[in-house]
Amino acid sequence: MSTEKIPYKIYLEEQEMPKAWYNLRADMKNKPAPLLNPGTHQPMKAEELAGVFCDELIRQELDDTTAYFDIPEDIRNFYKMYRPSPLVRAYCLEEKLGTPAKIYYKFEGNNTSGSHKLNSAIAQAYYAKKQGLKGVTTETGAGQWGTALSMACSYFGLDCKVYMVKCSYEQKPFRREVMRTYGASVTPSPSMETEVGRKILAEHPGTTGSLGCAISEAVEKALHSEGYRYVLGSVLNQVLLHQSVIGLESKIAMDKYGIKPDIIIGCAGGGSNLGGLIAPFMGEQLRGEADYRFIAVEPASCPSFTRGVFAYDFCDTGMVCPLAKMYTLGSGFIPSANHAGGLRYHGMSSVLSQLYADGQMEAVSVKQTEVFEAAEYFARVEGILPAPESSHAIRVAIDEALRCKETGEGKTILFGLTGTGYFDMVAYEKFHDGVMSDYIPTDEELEKARIGLPKID
Amino acid sequence: MSTEKIPYKIYLEEQEMPKAWYNLRADMKNKPAPLLNPGTHQPMKAEELAGVFCDELIRQELDDTTAYFDIPEDIRNFYKMYRPSPLVRAYCLEEKLGTPAKIYYKFEGNNTSGSHKLNSAIAQAYYAKKQGLKGVTTETGAGQWGTALSMACSYFGLDCKVYMVKCSYEQKPFRREVMRTYGASVTPSPSMETEVGRKILAEHPGTTGSLGCAISEAVEKALHSEGYRYVLGSVLNQVLLHQSVIGLESKIAMDKYGIKPDIIIGCAGGGSNLGGLIAPFMGEQLRGEADYRFIAVEPASCPSFTRGVFAYDFCDTGMVCPLAKMYTLGSGFIPSANHAGGLRYHGMSSVLSQLYADGQMEAVSVKQTEVFEAAEYFARVEGILPAPESSHAIRVAIDEALRCKETGEGKTILFGLTGTGYFDMVAYEKFHDGVMSDYIPTDEELEKARIGLPKID
Repeated sequence: MSTEKIPYKIYLEEQEMPKAWYNLRADMKNKPAPLLNPGTHQPMKAEELAGVFCDELIRQELDDTTAYFDIPEDIRNFYKMYRPSPLVRAYCLEEKLGTPAKIYYKFEGNNTSGSHKLNSAIAQAYYAKKQGLKGVTTETGAGQWGTALSMACSYFGLDCKVYMVKCSYEQKPFRREVMRTYGASVTPSPSMETEVGRKILAEHPGTTGSLGCAISEAVEKALHSEGYRYVLGSVLNQVLLHQSVIGLESKIAMDKYGIKPDIIIGCAGGGSNLGGLIAPFMGEQLRGEADYRFIAVEPASCPSFTRGVFAYDFCDTGMVCPLAKMYTLGSGFIPSANHAGGLRYHGMSSVLSQLYADGQMEAVSVKQTEVFEAAEYFARVEGILPAPESSHAIRVAIDEALRCKETGEGKTILFGLTGTGYFDMVAYEKFHDGVMSDYIPTDEELEKARIGLPKID
Repeated sequence: MSTEKIPYKIYLEEQEMPKAWYNLRADMKNKPAPLLNPGTHQPMKAEELAGVFCDELIRQELDDTTAYFDIPEDIRNFYKMYRPSPLVRAYCLEEKLGTPAKIYYKFEGNNTSGSHKLNSAIAQAYYAKKQGLKGVTTETGAGQWGTALSMACSYFGLDCKVYMVKCSYEQKPFRREVMRTYGASVTPSPSMETEVGRKILAEHPGTTGSLGCAISEAVEKALHSEGYRYVLGSVLNQVLLHQSVIGLESKIAMDKYGIKPDIIIGCAGGGSNLGGLIAPFMGEQLRGEADYRFIAVEPASCPSFTRGVFAYDFCDTGMVCPLAKMYTLGSGFIPSANHAGGLRYHGMSSVLSQLYADGQMEAVSVKQTEVFEAAEYFARVEGILPAPESSHAIRVAIDEALRCKETGEGKTILFGLTGTGYFDMVAYEKFHDGVMSDYIPTDEELEKARIGLPKID
């Protein structure tokens, strides 16, 4: 344990950066349930997935026993352009709150995609290129994943076709332009370009779209385009694997200074950030080497963990994808148009769902205006304008720190600051103008959204 | 000299960060000419400036002999939140260009203001607070300075009133919202709020504004508001002093690895970044300890160095400020509305003007579309979407690296990457859509703009 004063920001040296991703599933006794074929309800085989995903990514997706996957050198070199990301000690926030808690955050926003999404985008683009593909299709909600993938594809010379959830497309006009800078094409979803898009538009003409719907379009496009595969920025096991770099770097940095977190907090949409941040810590806990309090934070307007059911469901609105067992609100669930930013997915990573079902972590939901209050507070004190998604974690980190102030406990809190809010100023404007609402789905609405859940024996 | 492989990014340790700013004027044999009282044409005295500027900043402004000014601890702590900024080795750019040149850039964009401007903003806000003031007024062009000052004022609990050049206000709607997040009020300039604004609007009803005009409004507002002073983000000696932190950090990082730049390149609007970046290197050159090639890069649409005259001029359109001796296009000069981003100022730092007049550095002007070509190229290769201002330096760095490719020389190039372009997507969009023009002022237009130059004996 180091006795040095802990600096404001801990940057690992290049040679300290992780050389392998950690596969949390290897340490899970209750493995996440397998993907099922939507027709036969049998576990999906690699060859059935090969039309949709890249071969190497399928291998990563299905492997729940190998603990470490080497990070290829090309990806490690790309990581060196924008990583290591800093582990920040929030001295100013602690002082402003007057809390005895020690607050740390892993800041993933210092790259042009504005978030952690680039960690998996570059990996997925790499494997697509290695397989000799022409390009990839994807969906994007808040736009961070689409931007990240555009950057990654541009780097490897791959074509990139993005279906962007319509309300984000309209709320974030400049995201499209960033993706265009990186040579991607961007289509608001639902669109008239795909069969599933046309069907959804016919049934719900005024829809502002959803991630589930954009996924269906991107998958359909990949299946019907020679030399293309579909890639996804969250939910999947492979994505959590790549995102483990967040947690691994955090743990190396903390170990270096002898810091042990008591509470680890991450926002949860599909689970890519949370799953990546907690991975090595949860691994320790599963192996009985340590005990942490993990908190998943989700929006009250899209509360998969806290108000969903743990069941097999479709991953997309069009029901073209395999079935996954997860906490879900039903694949037809579409959050209120008033909901800003990402974390709009109806389901949740199977890995995290299993851990939550096993009592290995907690989940809370927070209201939108509380989230933006925390965001503005944090921006003023710590000098970083956070993404709405990240601000869910900030909200709960502040709440926990204030609880420490009441009890006098000097707990160590680590949270994931996934990205910046530079493209979310329309949402900030609504907040400033007092026109942001806290719409929360009613029990009746949630019940209705669950009607379409598939029946699995 | 270290024999380690040079990493992609060099971050100084906290204890290696500069503890004092370097005042380049102390090493200049030909000192920059003093500010003159516009009425008497006599050098401005501290007491004459006291109504406009903070006392401590006046002391820094007028002192051309003290080589180092200690950085107060509060400012050093704030610096630790977003500094040190990385010195990046552009391995990917070098490889893509196929150049034997070694390219480094000092990246100042990893903070919410999106640029180096925060380095001086926090210093100026600190001294205003220390003096017990209520608030400050300022102007902003591209919006980076206004954002930086908003952040700094929010940190110290000062009121912040920003006059934003109208065309930027309209091109960058979300910049206003960021400033609002930090509690600042933002007014498009020219406005009806000030006498000088009303006068300019009456004379030029359709004007898109200029920095010179926004400065006049901000100064007038400060003079007429109890407990307020005016602060400026560039041009002034004090600003170059604060910005020396850029060059000092760069030099410490380079010395650590035994790197000696041959060419140092910076974009130049008012000179804050260029003056800060080159400061310690130019100091060595002036003391005869080293020899560098310094290149100032300015937009062809606002070419103060390359087509201006070296003369006393007004710093603002309304002629309420002191006279400064500088390379100037005339205080009435307003760049074409088509010109994107900052670097719109009619004049140039007196320090840099004197150095240029003495042959200590070179200057080149570049056209806007060439700048955006370099910006997009850089974004794709190095993964950072640069600000239009910064991209002027990228353009010339790439040109110099390509020259090395022709000659086979492995020169070491250092350039300043002042910030990110996340709020400049309207300009990028114009570039992508092919509707960005390269308007360059004619000789007649420049001659006309010089008519108002004051006659000084």
